[in-house]
Amino acid sequence: MYSFKNDYSEGAHPRILQALVDSNLEQEDGYGEDRFSQKAVELIKERLGRKDVDIHLLAGGTQTNLTTISAFLRPHEAAIAANSGHIFTHETGAIEATGHKVLSIETEDGKLTPLLVKTVLDYHTDEHMVKPKLVYISNSTEIGTIYKKEELRRLSEFCRERDLILYMDGARLGSALCSEENDIELCDIPSFVDAFYIGGTKNGSLMGEALVICREALKGDFRYHIKQKGGLLAKGRLLGIQFYELFRDNLFFDLAEHANKMSGLLAAELSKVNIQFLTQSPSNQIFPILPNEVITALQKNYGFHIWETVNTDHSAIRLVTSWATREEAVLAFIDDLKKLY
Amino acid sequence: MYSFKNDYSEGAHPRILQALVDSNLEQEDGYGEDRFSQKAVELIKERLGRKDVDIHLLAGGTQTNLTTISAFLRPHEAAIAANSGHIFTHETGAIEATGHKVLSIETEDGKLTPLLVKTVLDYHTDEHMVKPKLVYISNSTEIGTIYKKEELRRLSEFCRERDLILYMDGARLGSALCSEENDIELCDIPSFVDAFYIGGTKNGSLMGEALVICREALKGDFRYHIKQKGGLLAKGRLLGIQFYELFRDNLFFDLAEHANKMSGLLAAELSKVNIQFLTQSPSNQIFPILPNEVITALQKNYGFHIWETVNTDHSAIRLVTSWATREEAVLAFIDDLKKLY
Amino acid sequence: MYSFKNDYSEGAHPRILQALVDSNLEQEDGYGEDRFSQKAVELIKERLGRKDVDIHLLAGGTQTNLTTISAFLRPHEAAIAANSGHIFTHETGAIEATGHKVLSIETEDGKLTPLLVKTVLDYHTDEHMVKPKLVYISNSTEIGTIYKKEELRRLSEFCRERDLILYMDGARLGSALCSEENDIELCDIPSFVDAFYIGGTKNGSLMGEALVICREALKGDFRYHIKQKGGLLAKGRLLGIQFYELFRDNLFFDLAEHANKMSGLLAAELSKVNIQFLTQSPSNQIFPILPNEVITALQKNYGFHIWETVNTDHSAIRLVTSWATREEAVLAFIDDLKKLY
Amino acid sequence: MYSFKNDYSEGAHPRILQALVDSNLEQEDGYGEDRFSQKAVELIKERLGRKDVDIHLLAGGTQTNLTTISAFLRPHEAAIAANSGHIFTHETGAIEATGHKVLSIETEDGKLTPLLVKTVLDYHTDEHMVKPKLVYISNSTEIGTIYKKEELRRLSEFCRERDLILYMDGARLGSALCSEENDIELCDIPSFVDAFYIGGTKNGSLMGEALVICREALKGDFRYHIKQKGGLLAKGRLLGIQFYELFRDNLFFDLAEHANKMSGLLAAELSKVNIQFLTQSPSNQIFPILPNEVITALQKNYGFHIWETVNTDHSAIRLVTSWATREEAVLAFIDDLKKLY
Repeated sequence: MYSFKNDYSEGAHPRILQALVDSNLEQEDGYGEDRFSQKAVELIKERLGRKDVDIHLLAGGTQTNLTTISAFLRPHEAAIAANSGHIFTHETGAIEATGHKVLSIETEDGKLTPLLVKTVLDYHTDEHMVKPKLVYISNSTEIGTIYKKEELRRLSEFCRERDLILYMDGARLGSALCSEENDIELCDIPSFVDAFYIGGTKNGSLMGEALVICREALKGDFRYHIKQKGGLLAKGRLLGIQFYELFRDNLFFDLAEHANKMSGLLAAELSKVNIQFLTQSPSNQIFPILPNEVITALQKNYGFHIWETVNTDHSAIRLVTSWATREEAVLAFIDDLKKLY
Repeated sequence: MYSFKNDYSEGAHPRILQALVDSNLEQEDGYGEDRFSQKAVELIKERLGRKDVDIHLLAGGTQTNLTTISAFLRPHEAAIAANSGHIFTHETGAIEATGHKVLSIETEDGKLTPLLVKTVLDYHTDEHMVKPKLVYISNSTEIGTIYKKEELRRLSEFCRERDLILYMDGARLGSALCSEENDIELCDIPSFVDAFYIGGTKNGSLMGEALVICREALKGDFRYHIKQKGGLLAKGRLLGIQFYELFRDNLFFDLAEHANKMSGLLAAELSKVNIQFLTQSPSNQIFPILPNEVITALQKNYGFHIWETVNTDHSAIRLVTSWATREEAVLAFIDDLKKLY
Repeated sequence: MYSFKNDYSEGAHPRILQALVDSNLEQEDGYGEDRFSQKAVELIKERLGRKDVDIHLLAGGTQTNLTTISAFLRPHEAAIAANSGHIFTHETGAIEATGHKVLSIETEDGKLTPLLVKTVLDYHTDEHMVKPKLVYISNSTEIGTIYKKEELRRLSEFCRERDLILYMDGARLGSALCSEENDIELCDIPSFVDAFYIGGTKNGSLMGEALVICREALKGDFRYHIKQKGGLLAKGRLLGIQFYELFRDNLFFDLAEHANKMSGLLAAELSKVNIQFLTQSPSNQIFPILPNEVITALQKNYGFHIWETVNTDHSAIRLVTSWATREEAVLAFIDDLKKLY
Repeated sequence: MYSFKNDYSEGAHPRILQALVDSNLEQEDGYGEDRFSQKAVELIKERLGRKDVDIHLLAGGTQTNLTTISAFLRPHEAAIAANSGHIFTHETGAIEATGHKVLSIETEDGKLTPLLVKTVLDYHTDEHMVKPKLVYISNSTEIGTIYKKEELRRLSEFCRERDLILYMDGARLGSALCSEENDIELCDIPSFVDAFYIGGTKNGSLMGEALVICREALKGDFRYHIKQKGGLLAKGRLLGIQFYELFRDNLFFDLAEHANKMSGLLAAELSKVNIQFLTQSPSNQIFPILPNEVITALQKNYGFHIWETVNTDHSAIRLVTSWATREEAVLAFIDDLKKLY
């Protein structure tokens, strides 16, 4: 049984484990004030070409989203998200639990545009309704699509015109940035968004997301929020060491590239036998539409999620690849699938 | 410079790191549904001699406290804590951020008694005040003291009579249970409290606390709360592997015993030169009272917190030992101190 | 200028003011423990034919909704509402501010059915999503429609089967119950829902809603929640006196009947000139679709809300009648409209 | 039986009721946008001699406190209050329910000073603790004492130096300002505090508090907060008419003066027979210490709260007078008491 269920089925890239082992008995200050965290933050700032951002290392995606959004918003302000957005559907109401409504927008491709956001703004006219204030996007999105630079630029301009905070969930930012279709560089992002995070958990770490706050007015007292929401790890070194290892050379990008290469291989081979996809995903999640009996047969040897019923005979499945996906497993899957077709 | 600042200055016990390395490429389900977490839970249940408890592995202490207390209480209900209690002073209002007041009680030794709790109950008479509902205790306490079995039994009985939830923060439970003065066994605890957690972070793990819910009525839907509060790690295996390693033999207790042995050695030697202590601590935190000039001199070579001003010339410092504290460092500290005295 | 903007443009029915004057200097206990509130509660229980319900008098609709829903739900549980539901769109995120997501359902007529609710339940499968727990309906709805007894019975049965709390917002319950199409009696409601409120503000009171809690398990400590959310008026008598006056004879129903008679007159006359309506409303809010130039002309002499753009030339307006609507004003409006047509 | 239990035992001053009657059938916009509310706001601004403040009319004290404090604070910030402060003990955790800790300070006289506040600031050193941000005071205090101008000035200066928000709960501001010992005028207050409210409920209204926001940065979007917390009355006119009546001449102050005159009479006569008081109160709440058997005897004909046990034989009771307190009742009480003495 080989799993394509997600990109967090294995532990961490071996270099990361080795870095943990090597530093294990060094005494460090707690709560992210260790030297590794500080060095990791410096490395990421260099990559971004920006000294004036604040960077915080947090344990996971939902933790990062709820801490950030609740820190940025006043009580009557709301977030806007695609209806496929992680905060809208898959975080058990974490944002609402901090007191804020999430306004959702129906989208085709999981991406927000100025026009879509404007519709929400136009609808919210007075104090009997929440005040839309933060625009939440994911790159890559929850359905594998990615933002092009021009799309991001236009959304960014719109948000600035309308005094909205633009926040990017980068749980799978590595895969987005290493996608063949991508034209955004990591160092472009701070000029477009007010805050974003660089996902480690789904790109080779045991855990960890690096939150980057770009807008000055949003930086204040942020460590209080991390602590209050339970995200300030006593052994912050655990995050620092991992991000240091990911960014001291090209490891972060190498791992994402491997994940994309594996999903690209899957997509290309499936296309050859005329399999259709639910979304046009250039990143590490793909959603092929298969006959239900083929799905049943594949389930004997492979793990994956059935994403959506397409018609009475067909469903879309989700295949996720990662830094750890073995090419032989991909080839075996393709072989097995072709035999069933 | 050697640090006695806390018990989370180093990484993890080497056996834990090795276990992470050994299991690294095995594919596991996410979110605590991996085989390691399941095995760890089974091992702890065996240690507790109880199959009917629910056990959840969480990332840190504040996260565990806020998730648990907010899950257990209705909106108008409050927690009761010693004024030295971690949730009252050192969690940045994490409990209040979930909507609940923390009622504090002045104590001598950091411990709650039926009489102290009764005072709070008697004061809260009607719906113009919060309803005290959960009693929060720490063992060992934040000032190093521990509960004796008889103390815990009486508090437990009182809470049951008054329909209060008794919750024990076990961030340093290992040290408490391995203290020479202790007469409680791990397997005794579920019969006394409604929920408690076994601290891993401060006893040899990279991170992780094992929450044990003993009262049936408090178990329902608990994973929803963990997810909502941002505590459900995608790679839950990281917690499972560590607790499995701590409890597959006696490692958890061995580590705590070492920590206690080191603090005991410190305390014994300091007593020999007639140094007084702020509290009578039989666990891994001790609070010697030293002349300020001695403190200043020690700070050149040792890290520790200055805890409290005692008088114009003296302050209490906090020395914390851990599984990783080296005996040579302790002896050197004692030597250096004696020279200064 | 005559206003059809809403059913709270005037003060209170004169009998209510007189009752306030008559009782003014009697000394009463505060916070709803006065004799008037107690008598009002008894009167309503008699009307309901139920001694075993709990009744609380609160100041307004949003206050009642947020207090009730937050008291009934645990942190991870969510409310379900029509997308036209007041709590979803017009309470500034009041429910979310207490920590709970509101899941919305697209509807044709503002009403929920078992099938619609089931769709939401089916979608929410595990702890990564909120747990739908409370079904919020309004009768009459925000777009003037009302529930028939059979519809309510079926929804009620479904909720019981699926362990959902059924809560009815009765801001305009008077108008619903006095509608010609209605077949529900006030005393039927407790057998169908777990809680509901009888709206006073929009039916002749200065303010006030009478919350009726029918399900035993939801009653406990409710006054704590009212106090905590700021709804426990020091001079609770203000609510008690008004509800006593509304229910000591048939006043509550007489007032609603007048409102309906006035909206019925409007609707009948508008239909005669072939004006279409956005919704088929048998209650005191109607939504005629008019040419935009007619709307502009009417605005010179009449106040009302423009509800929705229908096409480039037409919009729907909302006309609301109340206990205080004067028949002459209605006739004048009809005359003026016919002249414009 | 005559009640000295509180200052909200009766309805409203007759002039207020008459104003409600006179305006009853005028049609007005809802939600505080009626002409009466606007005129009331203008009148109060004139009294304050300040055009640049924002004034909002809210239904009650707890509602005002929770709406204001939650609107002003970010999630990690806390309020500071005397341990006798209403928000700390008698609002069922309303502030905590919005997510904020209330830090309490032990006081002799219910009043805060720069020194007392500084102690709290000094204790809160880093992000592991909440950040004290708002200083909550009551004038008169919950135990009847009042602030002198110099005290308020010094506290105000300290708060500005330390970037703290100073907020005054004026539930009984009328009584404070009309006290013989008072040297503050209503128009002085905006120069000292960032926000305060003028209490109507306890000074002749059926309900209602006028919140005055003085600091520019705290004004934004405040109506959203009122609506979200359930405090935006549909018939806002109910508040507007009452405050208009209170402030269109000297009624607000006349009523408070009467209340003070009655408590002064009580205090003077009790002093004559050498009765001691728990606090030196120059306002409309006094706390005489009486032998328990005297208290029991008085309870046959008079209502009041037993405030505190003083020793085995004596308790302090609370006597509250109001605009409605009849002088004959006061004299009768004094007579009866003297007979028992």
